[in-house]
Amino acid sequence: MRGRPLLVDQHCHGVLRSGPERAGFESYLTESSSPAAPGTSFFDSQLGFAVRRWCGPVLGLPAHCAPQDYLARRSELGAAEATRRLLRSSGISAFLVDTGLPGDLLTPAELAEFARAEAHEIVRLERLAERAADAARDTSSFLAEVSDTVRDAARRAKGFKSVVAYRVGLDFEPHPPGTSQVYTAAERWLATRVRGGRLNDPVLLRHLIWAAVRTGLPLQLHTGFGDPDLRLHRCDPLLLTDFIRAVAPYGTPLVLLHCYPYHRGAGYLAAVYPHVYADFGLSLAHTGARAGAVLAELLELAPFGKLLFSTDAFGLPELYVVGAEVFREALAHTLSAFTSANAWSPGDAERVAGLLSTGNAARLYGLQSEA
Amino acid sequence: MRGRPLLVDQHCHGVLRSGPERAGFESYLTESSSPAAPGTSFFDSQLGFAVRRWCGPVLGLPAHCAPQDYLARRSELGAAEATRRLLRSSGISAFLVDTGLPGDLLTPAELAEFARAEAHEIVRLERLAERAADAARDTSSFLAEVSDTVRDAARRAKGFKSVVAYRVGLDFEPHPPGTSQVYTAAERWLATRVRGGRLNDPVLLRHLIWAAVRTGLPLQLHTGFGDPDLRLHRCDPLLLTDFIRAVAPYGTPLVLLHCYPYHRGAGYLAAVYPHVYADFGLSLAHTGARAGAVLAELLELAPFGKLLFSTDAFGLPELYVVGAEVFREALAHTLSAFTSANAWSPGDAERVAGLLSTGNAARLYGLQSEA
Amino acid sequence: MRGRPLLVDQHCHGVLRSGPERAGFESYLTESSSPAAPGTSFFDSQLGFAVRRWCGPVLGLPAHCAPQDYLARRSELGAAEATRRLLRSSGISAFLVDTGLPGDLLTPAELAEFARAEAHEIVRLERLAERAADAARDTSSFLAEVSDTVRDAARRAKGFKSVVAYRVGLDFEPHPPGTSQVYTAAERWLATRVRGGRLNDPVLLRHLIWAAVRTGLPLQLHTGFGDPDLRLHRCDPLLLTDFIRAVAPYGTPLVLLHCYPYHRGAGYLAAVYPHVYADFGLSLAHTGARAGAVLAELLELAPFGKLLFSTDAFGLPELYVVGAEVFREALAHTLSAFTSANAWSPGDAERVAGLLSTGNAARLYGLQSEA
Repeated sequence: MRGRPLLVDQHCHGVLRSGPERAGFESYLTESSSPAAPGTSFFDSQLGFAVRRWCGPVLGLPAHCAPQDYLARRSELGAAEATRRLLRSSGISAFLVDTGLPGDLLTPAELAEFARAEAHEIVRLERLAERAADAARDTSSFLAEVSDTVRDAARRAKGFKSVVAYRVGLDFEPHPPGTSQVYTAAERWLATRVRGGRLNDPVLLRHLIWAAVRTGLPLQLHTGFGDPDLRLHRCDPLLLTDFIRAVAPYGTPLVLLHCYPYHRGAGYLAAVYPHVYADFGLSLAHTGARAGAVLAELLELAPFGKLLFSTDAFGLPELYVVGAEVFREALAHTLSAFTSANAWSPGDAERVAGLLSTGNAARLYGLQSEA
Repeated sequence: MRGRPLLVDQHCHGVLRSGPERAGFESYLTESSSPAAPGTSFFDSQLGFAVRRWCGPVLGLPAHCAPQDYLARRSELGAAEATRRLLRSSGISAFLVDTGLPGDLLTPAELAEFARAEAHEIVRLERLAERAADAARDTSSFLAEVSDTVRDAARRAKGFKSVVAYRVGLDFEPHPPGTSQVYTAAERWLATRVRGGRLNDPVLLRHLIWAAVRTGLPLQLHTGFGDPDLRLHRCDPLLLTDFIRAVAPYGTPLVLLHCYPYHRGAGYLAAVYPHVYADFGLSLAHTGARAGAVLAELLELAPFGKLLFSTDAFGLPELYVVGAEVFREALAHTLSAFTSANAWSPGDAERVAGLLSTGNAARLYGLQSEA
Repeated sequence: MRGRPLLVDQHCHGVLRSGPERAGFESYLTESSSPAAPGTSFFDSQLGFAVRRWCGPVLGLPAHCAPQDYLARRSELGAAEATRRLLRSSGISAFLVDTGLPGDLLTPAELAEFARAEAHEIVRLERLAERAADAARDTSSFLAEVSDTVRDAARRAKGFKSVVAYRVGLDFEPHPPGTSQVYTAAERWLATRVRGGRLNDPVLLRHLIWAAVRTGLPLQLHTGFGDPDLRLHRCDPLLLTDFIRAVAPYGTPLVLLHCYPYHRGAGYLAAVYPHVYADFGLSLAHTGARAGAVLAELLELAPFGKLLFSTDAFGLPELYVVGAEVFREALAHTLSAFTSANAWSPGDAERVAGLLSTGNAARLYGLQSEA
């Protein structure tokens, strides 16, 4: 044990089973889906610098080692050994894994074994519907399958997730669609869909979201930045205000993921609606040396019992390490600024650190672990 | 005297005449209108920590004392004595009180006596119209009463305030409505309104705002965050741009209250329109240990002659103390960062501190006091 | 030589040939187009303080000298000598000059001579069209002249610039207009226009922008704050998302100017679209003592190969000095915070400083100079 506080990573995506090589590796350091601009490298970013800083030493290299040295060492160790070392060094004791992304990824159980931690599933609603559509005979069986799968998932998983931000933006009509409206939309979607096609239909997206809301399990919503599939100004969590109000009578917790650069608005929502929580997600690892400043902005309006740590890590085990270490350092730096100004007492700072690292997630998701 | 600069609090709401007990006390520490989420407390926020930090010592307890100790001590002293001690310790020499909030509150004159300070009235337009509607015989007498009351208020009060942000958002039609349009709207509102009902009609709201504009007195406008009655993304002060342009020929000062998290945009408006001012309001007390960072952002584009201090305190005398102390510390911290980097001279810093604390408000509202 | 890194100023506007006197001087310290509010001065702003700080010493006065002393000394030296001293002290080795602003300004060649630097032209599209309209016999000759001039400019200039943000906002229809649509719009505009009239027609604005896109030269777009001719919330660079996607197949670099207070969103666009770059422009000089904080926010998501320095200086040679010095200090301060926290290595910090100061601009605009 390293004396560091453990962490519950309340939102991540799994690790590649093998590889990747250099070009592939770089592509995981950015939300871009294109090659880097001529004359530039994705390593030249806060995230790229943070990987070199934190992961070099885990693999026996100096901090800030050159990218080629890092990749050579990684290759020498092999993906399995590098993954094992990196995950175990992260100090993450529990993973909540959104299993809805494609790719040859470790399962939650495998991730848990590699990391000597526990892992739980978060069910991505859109993937659930797309799988049901791939298997459906007709509209009725599709809708029945969606209902059944949501109900089954609610018994097994710790929560749901929606990427409606990517598909139609967050200013969707806030109320549940009517039954016949859902049927018509499903019929139309199934009739025109090619196998494997994405769910972009706004009525079906709302139908899924409300099915999840009715289970009472926490519902994670992508908000803020992400890959260029989204239009960022349509992903301001404040656009969810009417939806949040509509959900209030159900009490279902809504977890706003990432939030950047709209995290101050997310903090406001967490402050005024008891069922709203906010997550750091991508926002810390991708801002690296600036993560303390971003975290501090979330700590303005958001109640301290409403903020949750996550890495949003996908593909590279490095992203778990960076997510965890950047968060730890940002938190220590921010709280130390508060206590050294005498604005917070040291005891309060320690207690809040525990809430953000594990306490809030353990309470919200009903985790039994000592985390 | 404590050697601290005095303050003009250009926007506040009065203090409860008695109480409150614990649950009531907590409810004043948040803009939420619901109970705290399960497992959380409204004391676990920047504002809650700031109350424990600043107010404990005023009542003879250590800074950061436990909430229950603070509440016990407060109870022991009684509401009147606690209010007296807290208000007098705040160093606020003049209060501009928006008298339009309900509740058993001290009058401005009583507040002045408790605090050994002066107090002036700011007239809330929507409340003025709701009172006129409660008393009106018919549409004509209602509209006449509104006109008369605005005119009378302009003689007595230091300014007007509108909460149109709460009622319809800030993207309202910018120009004054026509006479017959106003008559029709008033007739419809009076016909459907139950006694005590809120004014939500956009035409009447604009009619009130323009009646106030024509008096030439400063008009305070709620912008930015507040309780969950508003939709925050509809409260960006930049949405007022066309209204601000329409008011320009009148020269009536418009004071943007609170502004967070849109305070940088408010600073822009204060920079490019001579009749626009910006206020810190809620934004400092609610961000506590982070208030220096928020204040510094307002000091980016806003001209130093255009920024105004206020507490927006409501109900608890603690909120005056916290508003004042958090502002003083944020200001000292920010200006000291500027001077120690040699970006500002110490003389300039002292002069700007005076402008923000008292000078700008005294000039804008024509206060005679030594403040 | 002062041992300071040289700078490429990738966006500026030239210097007044003579004057100005005090009132005129103050008017260049603000984006406002009105006199300062009663009782206030445009010198009381971050930019005003920065001018006194940085320019006093260049003219032989103490830093932070009083405005009247500065103006008296400037007058004593004469405009030509003050301009020479100020420009040469700025350490700017290359200027990219948007030649589309009116006024009795030094030409790029004269600016180069005064500053002992090189200067290149950036062609402002709207001005190009307005000049063509002033000279046009009819619609066909106008459109032919526009085409020819854009093509000629592409041979001579380093890039284009559009102020479509001012004219219609950034949420313009993203795709190129059709030929007959352009013809109709041109006919209508020419028929109603008075000589010297501004181009506000959205179809013609898009036609110009797409003509520039097809040349492949970098296209600079005003985004974020500026004078009160714009509505700031319509100038969020994220509103360009669909246009950016439409331009992607052409690969034409789009340079987002200024960006404040939407610079974090600009950083996101630079991160996910290979052809998008972001510029500091106005945002640093106008925020003065806070420029380090603003720059640091741009360094969150934006790849380090995508950020560009500029002054946006117009009229006063002082604005080149302030733009350059404020940037240098902000950069040094920010990078030193990163390296002293061990988040970045000193070598990386030095390399990134070079990219932002000269490297990225030299690569993007194909400058041959040692800059």
